[in-house]
Amino acid sequence: MAKGPPIHYASYLKLDRLLSLQEPESARHGRPAHDETLFIIVHQVYELWFKQFLHEIDSVRSLFRQDRVAERDMGLAASRLHRVAEIAKLLIDQLSILETMTPLDFLDFRDLLSPASGFQSIQFHDLEMKFGVQLDPAQMEHRQRNLGSTRADSAADVNPSLFTLVERWLERTPFLDFRGFNFWSAYRSAVTAMLERDEKAIATHPSLSDSDKEQEKRELAKTRESFDALLDKERHDDLVKKKHRRLSHKATQAALLIHLYRDQPAFHVPFRLLTTLVDIDELLASWRHRHALMAFRMIGTKIGTGGTSGYGYLRSTVESRKVFTDLANLATFLIPRSALPSLPEHVEKSLGFAFEGSA
Amino acid sequence: MAKGPPIHYASYLKLDRLLSLQEPESARHGRPAHDETLFIIVHQVYELWFKQFLHEIDSVRSLFRQDRVAERDMGLAASRLHRVAEIAKLLIDQLSILETMTPLDFLDFRDLLSPASGFQSIQFHDLEMKFGVQLDPAQMEHRQRNLGSTRADSAADVNPSLFTLVERWLERTPFLDFRGFNFWSAYRSAVTAMLERDEKAIATHPSLSDSDKEQEKRELAKTRESFDALLDKERHDDLVKKKHRRLSHKATQAALLIHLYRDQPAFHVPFRLLTTLVDIDELLASWRHRHALMAFRMIGTKIGTGGTSGYGYLRSTVESRKVFTDLANLATFLIPRSALPSLPEHVEKSLGFAFEGSA
Amino acid sequence: MAKGPPIHYASYLKLDRLLSLQEPESARHGRPAHDETLFIIVHQVYELWFKQFLHEIDSVRSLFRQDRVAERDMGLAASRLHRVAEIAKLLIDQLSILETMTPLDFLDFRDLLSPASGFQSIQFHDLEMKFGVQLDPAQMEHRQRNLGSTRADSAADVNPSLFTLVERWLERTPFLDFRGFNFWSAYRSAVTAMLERDEKAIATHPSLSDSDKEQEKRELAKTRESFDALLDKERHDDLVKKKHRRLSHKATQAALLIHLYRDQPAFHVPFRLLTTLVDIDELLASWRHRHALMAFRMIGTKIGTGGTSGYGYLRSTVESRKVFTDLANLATFLIPRSALPSLPEHVEKSLGFAFEGSA
Amino acid sequence: MAKGPPIHYASYLKLDRLLSLQEPESARHGRPAHDETLFIIVHQVYELWFKQFLHEIDSVRSLFRQDRVAERDMGLAASRLHRVAEIAKLLIDQLSILETMTPLDFLDFRDLLSPASGFQSIQFHDLEMKFGVQLDPAQMEHRQRNLGSTRADSAADVNPSLFTLVERWLERTPFLDFRGFNFWSAYRSAVTAMLERDEKAIATHPSLSDSDKEQEKRELAKTRESFDALLDKERHDDLVKKKHRRLSHKATQAALLIHLYRDQPAFHVPFRLLTTLVDIDELLASWRHRHALMAFRMIGTKIGTGGTSGYGYLRSTVESRKVFTDLANLATFLIPRSALPSLPEHVEKSLGFAFEGSA
Repeated sequence: MAKGPPIHYASYLKLDRLLSLQEPESARHGRPAHDETLFIIVHQVYELWFKQFLHEIDSVRSLFRQDRVAERDMGLAASRLHRVAEIAKLLIDQLSILETMTPLDFLDFRDLLSPASGFQSIQFHDLEMKFGVQLDPAQMEHRQRNLGSTRADSAADVNPSLFTLVERWLERTPFLDFRGFNFWSAYRSAVTAMLERDEKAIATHPSLSDSDKEQEKRELAKTRESFDALLDKERHDDLVKKKHRRLSHKATQAALLIHLYRDQPAFHVPFRLLTTLVDIDELLASWRHRHALMAFRMIGTKIGTGGTSGYGYLRSTVESRKVFTDLANLATFLIPRSALPSLPEHVEKSLGFAFEGSA
Repeated sequence: MAKGPPIHYASYLKLDRLLSLQEPESARHGRPAHDETLFIIVHQVYELWFKQFLHEIDSVRSLFRQDRVAERDMGLAASRLHRVAEIAKLLIDQLSILETMTPLDFLDFRDLLSPASGFQSIQFHDLEMKFGVQLDPAQMEHRQRNLGSTRADSAADVNPSLFTLVERWLERTPFLDFRGFNFWSAYRSAVTAMLERDEKAIATHPSLSDSDKEQEKRELAKTRESFDALLDKERHDDLVKKKHRRLSHKATQAALLIHLYRDQPAFHVPFRLLTTLVDIDELLASWRHRHALMAFRMIGTKIGTGGTSGYGYLRSTVESRKVFTDLANLATFLIPRSALPSLPEHVEKSLGFAFEGSA
Repeated sequence: MAKGPPIHYASYLKLDRLLSLQEPESARHGRPAHDETLFIIVHQVYELWFKQFLHEIDSVRSLFRQDRVAERDMGLAASRLHRVAEIAKLLIDQLSILETMTPLDFLDFRDLLSPASGFQSIQFHDLEMKFGVQLDPAQMEHRQRNLGSTRADSAADVNPSLFTLVERWLERTPFLDFRGFNFWSAYRSAVTAMLERDEKAIATHPSLSDSDKEQEKRELAKTRESFDALLDKERHDDLVKKKHRRLSHKATQAALLIHLYRDQPAFHVPFRLLTTLVDIDELLASWRHRHALMAFRMIGTKIGTGGTSGYGYLRSTVESRKVFTDLANLATFLIPRSALPSLPEHVEKSLGFAFEGSA
Repeated sequence: MAKGPPIHYASYLKLDRLLSLQEPESARHGRPAHDETLFIIVHQVYELWFKQFLHEIDSVRSLFRQDRVAERDMGLAASRLHRVAEIAKLLIDQLSILETMTPLDFLDFRDLLSPASGFQSIQFHDLEMKFGVQLDPAQMEHRQRNLGSTRADSAADVNPSLFTLVERWLERTPFLDFRGFNFWSAYRSAVTAMLERDEKAIATHPSLSDSDKEQEKRELAKTRESFDALLDKERHDDLVKKKHRRLSHKATQAALLIHLYRDQPAFHVPFRLLTTLVDIDELLASWRHRHALMAFRMIGTKIGTGGTSGYGYLRSTVESRKVFTDLANLATFLIPRSALPSLPEHVEKSLGFAFEGSA
């Protein structure tokens, strides 16, 4: 039971102030446009969700800033990222409401808003930076121009990003070389053996034509090539330097380990967490994609609110602003359970719960 | 091109004020609960959508207040109600975000909010009243107790409700008795003929057993009974008095006319509008249902925030607060196209576009 | 690389046969109704999803049939139940397609289908039974009449249901009395202390009026009463006998333990699994609810396909067919983290991972 | 009441056959993979929805094949396209079920399916062709290779596509030059006047700096340029030849007319229909996008089932396979209601309902 004075719904939510923040420009100009209220409310709701998104990402970043992330904090981090994913889903669902406004309705007040633009959302910028988006120089300049001087007001601490913190956490995992089990050399052997089996299978296949065999061999060569680029640290580092990869070699190893042995209790939550990061990445990409489509439909290829030819720019950012592509890409390097090196018993036991060992 | 000074995104949306309205009680009490921010933001977002919902319903009500609703205004009304339906959908989708908060997390700050409760939302109350919800005395008393003195502040003009305005508009339709075509007597004859055909079909059915025939006859009797209650104005009025029906006899006739001849151009938009009203009604019912489930899961059957045993009350309101049940119920009285009286040619022409007649 | 002959998409999916299974009755009767194809396909798709639902539930049931569920199998069970929840969501989404068919369109062929009805779906019946739905005698008789003789063909092994298996698994948990820590007595003390604190807080509250204090006391008495009914095994058993509760006293204790200490690594997956069971229960309830609404809208209150007055029956089943209500109801008995007895260190260690202890 | 023998749910839906069409390859190879059932069912469900999609598109195409589309058929076409949009939405929702299968689970049976691939779906190919997708030669060759000889079996009549039929219907509209009102010259004058107003507003703006004025002038020049390319038929035709536009000049005029005067009763349904076509286009694009993301996540950049490096190919098709881009692009050419030439009264009357004129 609370000891303080009773709380009322309206004052708790500060409704009088909240509901007085919608002041259409069109009304101020003496020609009220019915749909401008919708336009304002949709964007205010977006900003409220961005705030919640930041609240969760900040809390997860602070959990991951610890030198050693306690296991119970892992569960917390996974839950909060799951919430972020749900918010990202809602951002998408919400577009269907804005889409009920037609371009002609938008034209009734669009000119009055110039040059305001969603590109000026500081919260969205911070959200991307904190998640780990990397802008190339042109994008960054575009962003800076839009955020303008207001940016200075925000002292957002965006570093290290969630990407960096997760990368470091992966690199710290003790299981890459654990009590005599070296994951990387076991994995390398398994891959080599698998590729040799495939090579033999092609050579001795009873029903493949010669040209089909050549085709299969070419594909196998490509597969081998892509595994080589992973297994060789130097080549991986080179790909990172060229920005074809982003995740460090060691962190990639750890992520693979978790994916391949995700059935082990100790990897349940880490696996879920990595998967959720990829989910969020894809949801944000889908949101950018759908948002670009909607903007295109609303303003055509004309110069957008904000002076940028919106659609072209938006569209170009859908893929380039993804953060955890290397995690999504792990599928390339998974090997079937049947080819997977089995863990030594004492390692498997370590990855289980303490009470089991003693049972 | 705007002539005024340039507008900035943040000032247009009043972001500094908007984003300063989240002040968790738990922080004020010195034991910040991470999830209270979510709780506040979710409810603020709900209130913003309620405001938009009211904005649309108010505009549709004002369109329908005209003595004669211009045809182009019908299209506008249908679009705005479609938007309301989209908002109602989002209210439901949004629950999945609140559901990421577990009951244990809620317990961290729930006691501090007492006795604040969603039942104190004036906007939601107004929204229901304006849509046409009728509360029975017990519900109304419950509502008044919750809204309390704050209610006085709101001078919301909730009458006539959308239900009443739509009912009046239906009653005014000129087509019930139009240039020699009396819809109700044509419909009555068609129903009578259909039921007689069915009676004969049962009697002469080649393969039905006697007991099956008896069963079919009993069902036919029930069907006849339910048509009779519709066709007889006095019986219908009596059902209205007993609150088993709500829509007046004349409005019901008009709604049936629109449903049966909805392929006629003049009925396209009216049919869509009536359908959307039922959609909104169902979406709000689904929202209440899902909301009740969530509240149950969050607080159990314990006394809820706000001093009411939330779930029981919420659950009881899912059905009773529906407004357009009689429209949803029209399916009961539809007759197959093959049994439908065909319109006289000059009537059909009147329901088409002017340019067609002259083509 | 596969060793067999190449597989083709169409033959793998048996598309020629699959796509030949849609034979509208209306076409057979010489008056093809456009929408009957939709009606058939929607229901065939439902049956395919029911099959998948059964596939997952069966696999989870077989995992839980083991005397001791291996921890890695727990992760598997949780994932598969998550998939079931996703399927249940889709069942709901799918209704929006059927809703594009209007009642008048349905009338074009409805009579031809008599007395076929969704109540005759054996897979859906099995799915409910395997999940753990309990039908009262009237419902069961209704069901049997609809399933009719065809039921004999299905030798579905529906026992023990998932509910029963989960109950048994909960009862087997070793942690209720573990190395000197007796959960139930610790919980009882914590509840007693919390209620006493509340009692004192009311008595000494500085600003409550006397009548408010009386009101608070009455509510506290109800809360105490509901905790008493849980803490006293005999009273709980009595509630079970009267069908006000379903989950055994011991299983309820275990479920509470998992909810209260869900942050412990060993409880992460069990907590998720229990939550998902409640999710599925609610999704099925939502589906029944929305489905009832749709049926109502499609056929009114008229006698439905299948000779039952569909809506009334459907509506009545929404709540009564829930299975895991007692898990959803656990919120009633949670106590704030601040009041929670902390685990002895050696118990907490046991609930962590083996590698942590040795680190 | 039906006259025939009673129909049973299971036989109506041919459930015995339907539910026997799931035969996992992994089981045939003696190492059953639990998730292959899901894989089969998901794809069979997709094919059932494709069939329904085709059923609707075919019916709309046949409505539009008439020399003059009756107004009541327009309503029918709009409803059926709305259903297609709902199906397209479900295709997207359904991905969330397939996403519950992890890459490692897929690896358990992926090799056995080689080289089967979704690219071999004839129904999907037909669906795209009938909707109006144009494949470039490389895409078409790729498609042909995948569909292979089985294609011959399908005598699908894909021409004229829905795109072509809609284009022809737009070109036939009588309102471009109607009773003395020439839309195109009125539109041209309005555009010219608007651009001149903008030019003057820049020149005389009280607070713009010189460099801002230069910037505004450059943007205005671009806007003028893009209107010119529309207003000049030859330039438009040239853009069509270069495949930068697809919709003919006359059809574009008609589509613009409908968008600008969509409040007129006669344009309600046409406007809705055009909007729904763009919706479907976008939904299919979103589906391709999300599907590509999922495939990437499932198989990485490795050579996909079907021998194509799936993701790259899929991704490249998201935009290029859109059909109604020119309709989506109309926003570029809308002018504010305030600048819109008002219709002569007798034209406005013609676009209303016949009964209004006589009222």
